[in-house]
Parts: sequence; C-alpha cells; structure tokens
Amino acid sequence: MSEFLRRHIEQIVPLTDEEYEAVSAYYSPKKLRRRQFLIQEGQLVGHMYLVTKGLLKSSITNTDGKEHIVQFAPENWWISDFAAFYKREKATLAIDCLEDTELLGISYEGLAEMCRKFPKMEHFSRVKANFGYIGIQQRLLAMMNKSAKERYVSFISQYPDMQQRIPKQLIARYLGVSRETLSRFSI
Amino acid sequence: MSEFLRRHIEQIVPLTDEEYEAVSAYYSPKKLRRRQFLIQEGQLVGHMYLVTKGLLKSSITNTDGKEHIVQFAPENWWISDFAAFYKREKATLAIDCLEDTELLGISYEGLAEMCRKFPKMEHFSRVKANFGYIGIQQRLLAMMNKSAKERYVSFISQYPDMQQRIPKQLIARYLGVSRETLSRFSI
Repeated sequence: MSEFLRRHIEQIVPLTDEEYEAVSAYYSPKKLRRRQFLIQEGQLVGHMYLVTKGLLKSSITNTDGKEHIVQFAPENWWISDFAAFYKREKATLAIDCLEDTELLGISYEGLAEMCRKFPKMEHFSRVKANFGYIGIQQRLLAMMNKSAKERYVSFISQYPDMQQRIPKQLIARYLGVSRETLSRFSI
Repeated sequence: MSEFLRRHIEQIVPLTDEEYEAVSAYYSPKKLRRRQFLIQEGQLVGHMYLVTKGLLKSSITNTDGKEHIVQFAPENWWISDFAAFYKREKATLAIDCLEDTELLGISYEGLAEMCRKFPKMEHFSRVKANFGYIGIQQRLLAMMNKSAKERYVSFISQYPDMQQRIPKQLIARYLGVSRETLSRFSI
C-alpha cells in the first residue's frame, strides 16, 4: 500500500518499521470508480476509510428527495458514516465517489484491536477523532451563523484547490445556495 | 471530588484505586452560579469540563445579535469550545450556566500528559471523542434534514427529563422555531 499510510500516520506519531508493518496489516485497500457508492443509506457500516486517491462526498437525502451534502473527502481525509460506524447501526448517510477513488479501510474490530495493542495508534485515533469533531463543529456553526458568502470563504479554506475538482453544482449544494448565487461569489 | 468522576470513567474503562488516585489529580473542581459564563467568546480555551451538577448551554451569537444554541450540557456531559480547546485558539462559542453548576476541569496539557501516562485514559478519551462526534453529527443532520417536529423528537431523545429544566424559550431557540410552534409540539 505504498508509503502513503505511513506518511499519514507519522504526521501525528512516529512508527518503527516493525510497528508500521504490524499496523498496516489492519488496513485493506479498496478501489471504486467515479459514481460508485462506498456506503449506501440503510447499510451496516463496518469500516472507516482513509482516502489515498480520488474524491468522495457524504450526503443525506430527505423524504422529498433533496440531497444535503455533509462533507467532501479528498486525499488524506477519513470518511465513513461515523455515527453508524461507532454505534454499530445502519447508515443514514450515503457516500459516493466524484472521481475514481482508492481507499484504505479498517474494520471496527480491527480498529479496536489495533488501538489496544498499539497505544501510539490509540493516540493517533484520538487526535484524528478530535480533528473530525472540529471539522463538523465548524460545518454546524457555519450553517447556523454564517451568510452564504462567509460559508463560501470557509469552504475555500477547508478545501483548498478543490474548486477545480468539485462540480460547481455540488459546491452550491454544499453551501445551500443556488448555482447563480455561487457564480457571483466566484468572480 | 466524590466518586462521580470514577463512576463516569468506569462506564468505559475500569481503574484500580491507584490509577484512579493518579488520574483524578488531573481534574480540578469549579463552581459557577446560574447566569455566570464558563467561557466567553474571544477567550483562550484552556480546559474542557465534565458537568457533575447543574446545566449549561453553548451558543454562538451572530453579528445581528441572534443567539444559536449548539448544545445543552447536564450532568455527565462534557462541555467546552472543543474546536478552540484542541486548536489552542480563541473561543467562538459562549458557554453559560442555566442552573448553579459544578464542574471538573482538565487542562490541555493535563489531558495530554494523562493520556500519555495512562493508556486506559487515552482509550477513554478516544471513545468520548467519538461519542462527541456522533452527537454533533446528529445535530448537523437534524438541522439539514429534519422538520421542526422531528427535531423536537430528537431533542427529547437526546435530552430525556430535560424539558422541565430547560426554559421553553431556550428549547425553541435550540430547535430554531418560535415559542408558539414549540407549544404545539409539546401538547
């Protein structure tokens, strides 16, 4: 699985070669093509995933068929329906690929065992969980409190260089504005 | 600090008497009266807090002076501006007491040291971070996707027995509905 995973983990904790070999065995590669679903609503969610290549989005669709985008996940982001993953419940989110995508998945049981055996990885997972919380708190506060223009500025800072990769229509949907309103921000 | 902290931690990890003694030394008690602020917007956030008695709310106020309530925190909940706490930044949230309140606070440095010295507490902190993420994901999805009536049902399930303790006006603000709309749900 190349050195991608090691570089990713070592941004937070250094690993010896032996540790890395043991830790990397918990992750399994997965490939999906553009438009395929990683997780569909109603499925049990057994894994969480590190994006090594490509781009996905997670979203929720209400009873009227309107899609709300929760997050985008490019390289080095983790993605899953984390609520369903941690609570061992069925997904309320759908996650699909905006590009051909490569991931490294770890199972619920694998994560628990890895964290038990490797305190460094428990630490890594705690830090990542905290960053995940920060991300979703920012998303919630932006929705509560920010104008559409301010949400666009937050989007640019949270997803730098993503404007070319994410279709304008989906950026507009993420921000909760019309395509026309978005085009006024982008100029 | 009584056995409150021990019972709280042991819901997730058992501790020996020696471990509990060492761990509890990282927490400091704090008392606030109703209407006092635990954290005000713009302050550096050095601690996170476990509520042992009382009730608080965290909120964000926009430039027009409109308050949006992020969460309520009764006994056994953790509260802080977690984004500010973990990023060592200034608070964007305000947190104030709806009742006379008692808390146990742990500092950023204390948390880091405790987790380093006690792998059990790193595990506890990871599990708590995951539950925190679940809570805020539910709040975000409810805001995106649920009707006011459905948000009220979620509120009741997330905060059982809180309807008597939280003023109706604040429940309405949390749900983003008028006081009149709320009274129709409650009947």
